[in-house]
Amino acid sequence: MKGRSPFSLLQKSVPAAAALLLFFLLLTVSPPSNSSYHSLFLSLSSNDTAAQHLQALTRRPHVAGTDANSVVAAYILSILSAASIPARIVPYHVLLSYPLHRSLSLLPNVSAPVVSFDLSQEIYPGDPFAEVAAEVLPTFHAYARSGTATGRVVYTNYGRVEDFAKLRAMGVEVAGNVVLARSGLVYRGDIVRNAQIAGAVAAILYVDAKDNGGRTGKWFPEARWLPPSGVEVGSVYRGAGDPTTPGWASVSECERVSVDEVVASGVMPAIPSLPVSPRDGEAILGTIGGQVAPEDWQGGTGAPVYHLGPGPGLLNLTYLGNETVMMIQNLIAVIEGKEEPDRYVLVGNHYDAWTFGAVDPNSGTAAFLEVAQRFAKMQKEGWKPRRTIILCSWDAEEHHLIGSTEWVEDNREMLASRAVAYLNMDYAVSGRGFHASSTPQLDELLKEAAKMVQDPDNSSQTLYESWASTDSPLIRRLGGGGSDYAAFVQHVGVPSVDMRFARDYPVYHSMYDDFLWMQKFGDPLFHRHVAAANILGLVALKLADEEFLPFDYISYANELQKSTKVLENELLGKPVSFAPLQESIEKFRRAASKVDSQRKELESKDLLSKWKKDPLKVRELNDRLMMTERAFTNREGLFGRPWFKHLVYGPSNHNVYLSRAFPSIDDAIEGVEVSKGLGSWKLVQREAWRVARVITQASRVLNGELT
Amino acid sequence: MKGRSPFSLLQKSVPAAAALLLFFLLLTVSPPSNSSYHSLFLSLSSNDTAAQHLQALTRRPHVAGTDANSVVAAYILSILSAASIPARIVPYHVLLSYPLHRSLSLLPNVSAPVVSFDLSQEIYPGDPFAEVAAEVLPTFHAYARSGTATGRVVYTNYGRVEDFAKLRAMGVEVAGNVVLARSGLVYRGDIVRNAQIAGAVAAILYVDAKDNGGRTGKWFPEARWLPPSGVEVGSVYRGAGDPTTPGWASVSECERVSVDEVVASGVMPAIPSLPVSPRDGEAILGTIGGQVAPEDWQGGTGAPVYHLGPGPGLLNLTYLGNETVMMIQNLIAVIEGKEEPDRYVLVGNHYDAWTFGAVDPNSGTAAFLEVAQRFAKMQKEGWKPRRTIILCSWDAEEHHLIGSTEWVEDNREMLASRAVAYLNMDYAVSGRGFHASSTPQLDELLKEAAKMVQDPDNSSQTLYESWASTDSPLIRRLGGGGSDYAAFVQHVGVPSVDMRFARDYPVYHSMYDDFLWMQKFGDPLFHRHVAAANILGLVALKLADEEFLPFDYISYANELQKSTKVLENELLGKPVSFAPLQESIEKFRRAASKVDSQRKELESKDLLSKWKKDPLKVRELNDRLMMTERAFTNREGLFGRPWFKHLVYGPSNHNVYLSRAFPSIDDAIEGVEVSKGLGSWKLVQREAWRVARVITQASRVLNGELT
Repeated sequence: MKGRSPFSLLQKSVPAAAALLLFFLLLTVSPPSNSSYHSLFLSLSSNDTAAQHLQALTRRPHVAGTDANSVVAAYILSILSAASIPARIVPYHVLLSYPLHRSLSLLPNVSAPVVSFDLSQEIYPGDPFAEVAAEVLPTFHAYARSGTATGRVVYTNYGRVEDFAKLRAMGVEVAGNVVLARSGLVYRGDIVRNAQIAGAVAAILYVDAKDNGGRTGKWFPEARWLPPSGVEVGSVYRGAGDPTTPGWASVSECERVSVDEVVASGVMPAIPSLPVSPRDGEAILGTIGGQVAPEDWQGGTGAPVYHLGPGPGLLNLTYLGNETVMMIQNLIAVIEGKEEPDRYVLVGNHYDAWTFGAVDPNSGTAAFLEVAQRFAKMQKEGWKPRRTIILCSWDAEEHHLIGSTEWVEDNREMLASRAVAYLNMDYAVSGRGFHASSTPQLDELLKEAAKMVQDPDNSSQTLYESWASTDSPLIRRLGGGGSDYAAFVQHVGVPSVDMRFARDYPVYHSMYDDFLWMQKFGDPLFHRHVAAANILGLVALKLADEEFLPFDYISYANELQKSTKVLENELLGKPVSFAPLQESIEKFRRAASKVDSQRKELESKDLLSKWKKDPLKVRELNDRLMMTERAFTNREGLFGRPWFKHLVYGPSNHNVYLSRAFPSIDDAIEGVEVSKGLGSWKLVQREAWRVARVITQASRVLNGELT
Repeated sequence: MKGRSPFSLLQKSVPAAAALLLFFLLLTVSPPSNSSYHSLFLSLSSNDTAAQHLQALTRRPHVAGTDANSVVAAYILSILSAASIPARIVPYHVLLSYPLHRSLSLLPNVSAPVVSFDLSQEIYPGDPFAEVAAEVLPTFHAYARSGTATGRVVYTNYGRVEDFAKLRAMGVEVAGNVVLARSGLVYRGDIVRNAQIAGAVAAILYVDAKDNGGRTGKWFPEARWLPPSGVEVGSVYRGAGDPTTPGWASVSECERVSVDEVVASGVMPAIPSLPVSPRDGEAILGTIGGQVAPEDWQGGTGAPVYHLGPGPGLLNLTYLGNETVMMIQNLIAVIEGKEEPDRYVLVGNHYDAWTFGAVDPNSGTAAFLEVAQRFAKMQKEGWKPRRTIILCSWDAEEHHLIGSTEWVEDNREMLASRAVAYLNMDYAVSGRGFHASSTPQLDELLKEAAKMVQDPDNSSQTLYESWASTDSPLIRRLGGGGSDYAAFVQHVGVPSVDMRFARDYPVYHSMYDDFLWMQKFGDPLFHRHVAAANILGLVALKLADEEFLPFDYISYANELQKSTKVLENELLGKPVSFAPLQESIEKFRRAASKVDSQRKELESKDLLSKWKKDPLKVRELNDRLMMTERAFTNREGLFGRPWFKHLVYGPSNHNVYLSRAFPSIDDAIEGVEVSKGLGSWKLVQREAWRVARVITQASRVLNGELT
């Protein structure tokens, strides 16, 4: 649609016939509707371009801060430029972390010889990337503490809080020893944190065969599994964004806190740690005696019996890291909205990778670039979005969401008043099966879009049909800190979505995450990439083009209700009342119904509605829909984690990857459980009040009414 | 103006002649311009109505929470109803404070008999309010600690931090003794706080003859001065809003913290205190021996010599207060905006009073009601404001800004996204001479409006002329906590104004603040009331009706610059750099210039501009102007005073009444001065960075540009 406004005036002042004539005159000059452009968008798909992009992006390992990553940035810039959607580079100067020196040796027992691990991922015969394999960083944990530690080994299962609790209960000494934990269930930074709290002197993480296809003896390149020498690299930093600029942007010449202060605050480890391969992990495990580990701590069919230790195996570990301020580059491309340039639909993907990044993240980058190219073609056909679309290519996600976080912090006030939604695609594809997480007002939109996209693995059905038949819950929530949506949702309160095909994959963060793996196992036909681009682009288009924001707050009310029920059941018989929370949710539900009917009323004004609607009336309603999510944030944030402002969805305090509903209540409940004192149920009650109040604020915003 | 929009489309599609015809057709149906209504507003003035209102409002003392105050509320409701601007009652359940029992006795020295003070304000012969004088509350300090204390008296001048420092330097023991302080220079709650910190067991405050017209022997009803038995009642609470609901609204059934917790947090006193009359104060002062007080601590011409003590005079004080949750009633009346109903111009005045409240606050209430009545008349003539005007009649201001604070907290998210400005009028008149405080983007608007209003004390000149010739600085800043603007400015960041005639007056908060005092001394002709209504209403009208918000951010940049200069001079040679602050201000200045020229460009689009301007373009620019002030707030707020979110203007930590620029830097500097350690200059630097960052955020918002 093109014009917007007071046709009503004309109707009053000129005869009806003239008005009608005018209407048709206007119609003839009006371009095709934006929904026809959306069909065009879907018809422009091509799996060739996605494959080409992915190949170009993953020629070399490209960790944030390296020249190789600048080459990737240049590629993205060139594609966007060629599509006439030029991006600007938004640099930040952030603390990154690289390995300088690592050594790990094992004394299996007093009489055996010392085993030294070479800690390298092996190049297999015929590896097409053998030539650049030397550019893969030595395996390490970003932001691990530099130092040397020696101690007997304790096996700690997945290194979760409950695993350490079990060890305590079983009388297994962790303090002074080295922790060996399998990775995969919680964020590795939380494993190291738990080890540190338990008094361990160091932590070693490995991928257990149980979580890597079992003991089939097959692995990449023959099978999709991680080879015996493969290592999951990653960050162990538990904060958000540049550790030295908590809450503000790392522009050049800005204030910085010292690394010591960061460590003291508990978000950066105070003990050294290293990731090791399945082979090295098993070798270490084999030297652990003591009690037999519980049944569910064992390694599955064919595995030896795991023991808890400590020792007799003795580990000696040295890690020396280089934490240094480096320039990173976010790439920001803007397609300006025609009617509402000051309303932003943001689409983001990061481009930095721990190694080649064929899955993580450049499958997402390929889809992202394809979306951009199709948007460019639509622009040539005359399409202009109603709202501004901002394409964000983030740097340094792998170090822990740094590029996106700094940018959000830099633009916080602007985003708080203008951002309609943020759509994230970290990696797009690591296999079959669509998955999505979102803030709940976007659930219906996601489903609707998925009904318009073909299932890449079965052309006779829609993406929605395959998705709905395999994923439960269909849509997850976005409180975790697993990717670049975190700052948008949890720091500012922007409605957000995260999407991908397949939830995890065995070569994650190893040097085997390369183009060949994608070709052989992830997406041989690249049709999943295309489907990822289809759904990502289509959701963006609907958000950018629909006159009324396609937000459904009834879904949100239902989700709030569900989460409250879960809490109530958990705390049955405890001196905590959830009545305030329930009341606030009821208010919210009524507001959601009201705004729904107001929208319908505005939509159905009359036949000439497109021309009659007052653009400021539409804006008023849309602003309510947009700002409601913001109201779920609280300025004080989570206790002890003040950067996290969202009181409805946030990460578990013990697993950054895990989304929790009402995280502050969660934290308070844990406080009671740890102290075992009745007194702090009062704090749980206080958090329940606090959550009830943000929901009440949100319902006021949705209502558009002052008290 | 009426229509708004795509005349451009018409121009393209119909011949020019038809377009012109249409334009004139539209003109004929368009109503008078809003600026002609503004002239009408000024012409509607009447000093009779203001006097009638004031008389009706001040028949009886009406402290918040009393029946008499409900009667006042009913009067306001009836006037607004009669004017067809019905108000709704918005109740809150808040902790109020009333006196139950007081006693004060003095043992002048070991050999003299005990003097018991009767602590009552005397009814003079012919007092027209004698009949209801019994309804005046016993003199007290609201929220004073209940208890009994005995101690030798120490004279502490005005009870400021520097006064206590001087006593320390002179070796005068305060700990264990009773403080006697003159009131008038800093907030009484801060005097009691200082006494408590110095270890005093109680505090007595009195009005010194020096600040009450000297020793002329004349007082009310003969002269304007406070009679010898007059007492300045008031609150000694240092927080904001209901003490038991810090940061959230006191709706019924809400969470509350205990009074003990409030006292522990330092905002409610832990020692008893009482206000006494000039006569009682002098009597106590006369029993203090020891060193002679410094020259500037003396009582002025004709006064006896003041000594510091402690003792020999010994005071015994008992205070028993009743802190109890009571219902208060804010009255909210809405005149809905026609074009932009979701943009709010708020006009507020409180109606509760410590006694009769003829000056404080009901002179303001009279002006407020007159404004409302004139708006009603304009509505009858066809006027509809472009934006929504909200008339707020606050309760419980005197207990410490409680009604307004609870309402702002209740509607925080809504106000944060919709409030254009808040205009406050506490008392309107206590004598001659106009005074105004504001956030700086409103300075120019205030001056412009004052040029359109006649000076009530000299009909040959404008209000601006008399104001400019007497007040310096012309406009003060709004960081203090003296009236109901506090929550708007300091908690949410809403551009605000506070206005009144005459800055202070001798019968302040005493039972002599009655209609007779106003008739004889404050405003015998009630023409100052009319001028107050004129300027208040006119500023509101301009904010509500002008297409572009009349905000000037160049003024703001200048003020920021000035305040930075002051700081730099203060910290010359100290290891603190203000370069980041200066840079951020330069950015802000550039943004201010840019938005100015953008506005001019939009305004001068072409001759048909009124019809051509895209309403969403205008809105985009206005939103930037509106949201810029919000960006000066920081979610973490001031250190130790987290409710205060504004980092540019806030109250001094030692005088709630005093507005400070960059209050967090102020606090940090004090930290260094107290600790005398070089180390904490680092904290000063950190606060300078924090302020620089909010200014940078504000300039982004003003610019309307993302990085």
